Amino acid sequence: MKRTHLFIVGLYLLSSCRAEEGLNFPTYDGKDRVVSLSEKNFKQVLKKYDLLCLYYHEPVSSDKVAQKQFQLKEIVLELVAQVLEHKAIGFVMVDAKKEAKLAKKLGFDEEGSLYILKGDRTIEFDGEFAADVLVEFLLDLIEDPVEIISSKLEVQAFERIEDQIKLIGFFKSEDSEYYKAFEEAAEHFQPYIKFFATFDKGVAKKLSLKMNEVDFYEPFMDEPIAIPNKPYTEEELVEFVKEHQRPTLRRLRPEEMFETWEDDLNGIHIVAFAEKSDPDGYEFLEILKQVARDNTDNPDLSILWIDPDDFPLLVAYWEKTFKIDLFRPQIGVVNVTDADSVWMEIPDDDDLPTAEELEDWIEDVLSGKINTEDDDNEDEGEDDDDDDDDNSDEEDDSDDDNDE
Amino acid sequence: MKRTHLFIVGLYLLSSCRAEEGLNFPTYDGKDRVVSLSEKNFKQVLKKYDLLCLYYHEPVSSDKVAQKQFQLKEIVLELVAQVLEHKAIGFVMVDAKKEAKLAKKLGFDEEGSLYILKGDRTIEFDGEFAADVLVEFLLDLIEDPVEIISSKLEVQAFERIEDQIKLIGFFKSEDSEYYKAFEEAAEHFQPYIKFFATFDKGVAKKLSLKMNEVDFYEPFMDEPIAIPNKPYTEEELVEFVKEHQRPTLRRLRPEEMFETWEDDLNGIHIVAFAEKSDPDGYEFLEILKQVARDNTDNPDLSILWIDPDDFPLLVAYWEKTFKIDLFRPQIGVVNVTDADSVWMEIPDDDDLPTAEELEDWIEDVLSGKINTEDDDNEDEGEDDDDDDDDNSDEEDDSDDDNDE
Repeated sequence: MKRTHLFIVGLYLLSSCRAEEGLNFPTYDGKDRVVSLSEKNFKQVLKKYDLLCLYYHEPVSSDKVAQKQFQLKEIVLELVAQVLEHKAIGFVMVDAKKEAKLAKKLGFDEEGSLYILKGDRTIEFDGEFAADVLVEFLLDLIEDPVEIISSKLEVQAFERIEDQIKLIGFFKSEDSEYYKAFEEAAEHFQPYIKFFATFDKGVAKKLSLKMNEVDFYEPFMDEPIAIPNKPYTEEELVEFVKEHQRPTLRRLRPEEMFETWEDDLNGIHIVAFAEKSDPDGYEFLEILKQVARDNTDNPDLSILWIDPDDFPLLVAYWEKTFKIDLFRPQIGVVNVTDADSVWMEIPDDDDLPTAEELEDWIEDVLSGKINTEDDDNEDEGEDDDDDDDDNSDEEDDSDDDNDE
Repeated sequence: MKRTHLFIVGLYLLSSCRAEEGLNFPTYDGKDRVVSLSEKNFKQVLKKYDLLCLYYHEPVSSDKVAQKQFQLKEIVLELVAQVLEHKAIGFVMVDAKKEAKLAKKLGFDEEGSLYILKGDRTIEFDGEFAADVLVEFLLDLIEDPVEIISSKLEVQAFERIEDQIKLIGFFKSEDSEYYKAFEEAAEHFQPYIKFFATFDKGVAKKLSLKMNEVDFYEPFMDEPIAIPNKPYTEEELVEFVKEHQRPTLRRLRPEEMFETWEDDLNGIHIVAFAEKSDPDGYEFLEILKQVARDNTDNPDLSILWIDPDDFPLLVAYWEKTFKIDLFRPQIGVVNVTDADSVWMEIPDDDDLPTAEELEDWIEDVLSGKINTEDDDNEDEGEDDDDDDDDNSDEEDDSDDDNDE
């Protein structure tokens, strides 16, 4: 593979003038670690690693922009491969045209995707294509699929996880066949969904778990659902999780952001921006949780919470695309096809909407009374409402904010 | 400026084959936004922006590696400048040789540093030189220096912040001269230290604040210190914070990591690795907090907590440099000059040390009984314990990193 980008020492910079040691960020050393996969070398490569990371790409075209993008993905993968060199993780490229047969055999269908093979499982990575996000994803994937809870403090740690789906089961021991089924089920969702288990009666009592019972916790809900008809087979557990996978309120996470965004309801997302570390944002998030708890049985409702702190590079893009100010909490409806949106009017961040007001607004969204299309005609004369309005140099264009 | 790197469209990739909109990561568009500063254009540039971000660099040498590093920093700055284009933030380069006079006037002394001018203040950025970290830092810097707390839920948000220094004051109104002094003091520490204020009697009562009183919260401590001798001048507040700036337990944060690392005690850091989102890590952190609370009056003790989740790209480097497994909690002593280290033996992560055991170990470290030098001779035969073992083809080739 010809490397026109060899001169790039890395995406992250080493600090060249420090007198101290201990915090040296890796820089790409220029070595080729990512290899091209073919039917010929497939088995041999697979055997070498616990985890194989495959970038399934369309043939490199002669188009300059496409070439550059391909090179950038390559550099990210090379840096990740370098950083994780000692972890028995392999990195390969699969050319969709040249290796069509192999790709079919592997079940790859979406060019530009990153797949990970672990044992006989194939996991798709559908998150931010950045070295740090990918490294963390892969490190999570080589950990045990089930985390054991064995002390009071660990129960407390378990209870504090509120922003993602979690399951916990109580079993006799690691040798229990039901624990084994639970472990196998966990592997289906690793690293996206966290599975916990305990073999300790005290812990089980604290969590009101009966022997061989598994509880499913929806994000931001206080009370779990006990999965019915224990003990369960692996298949029953997998099926239950799949059925309950879309929560009423969920946090957008870098490691699965694109998958989450694609999981829209009727082409829209109800999106709430709230910075948790900020008092206003925290308050708004608490109100959102209240709304989610009151409406957890509504299958048509799924609110996507975005903490701008998790996506610093997208803040300005969102402010411009959605014409909102992200220094304050916001909630709106976004059409995922064209990013057209309408936002609730929140005149003052010291006077946030109550749970009831939010519920009324959400009802209007779900009934179609509030939608992203109604305002499009009004706007046409003065401004193109799509995300290409680069004629002004102001960030917030605030009269356009309130156009419900 | 000749741009050999123009072909790089960005450090972050846009997803080119998605049918959906709303999550488009910015890619560098190739436009030059970062300008060279000189005495001639200085005033004009300064006038244009609320915030001016200056990269103070040594003259670009003919050395290839140095050139590449310079180019990479340039690209990071260009991407940040592009992302924040609408935020009235300017980005400039200051050549240490060509603009020596200007640099002296500005008080710049460390080549390779990034300074930010805001009004008549100069702030040094001493964190991870990555686009996302820098963007977040700058966004925090253009917010108000004091955050107002005005409701119960906001008090709760305030109370939940435990891993960084925070101050809160109770004042009559925004027009109070004491509030103004507090606000001025806040600007000295923005965005590193958070300042809160309330004008609400109910909030003040909940936090046991008297009129014009300011409370200082050390990280991880339940009880604040009321700053003595209220009301205070700006100078008194600044002095108090400076005196109390090194806590007994602190979290390493990307936006100030190098500054924190340089703030060692006698050439060493006591470093604890604990992944907060992991039950074992959470448990270990709780024990550490206990130790910190019991020893908060010991000025010789400052433990540095690192959550590996905050630094995915450094995990493998740390595991190799320190010869430890970061899937489990660790505590050790690190010599900041050569990264030589010794680590407490924790045989099993289900059997973490108690607070007492940790305190005994820490005592041995502070007395010098446990130190990084004692084991160096034993090791010499089998392995060079320094971080320059480049006889293997492993990733970090750390001698190249150490060229200070």
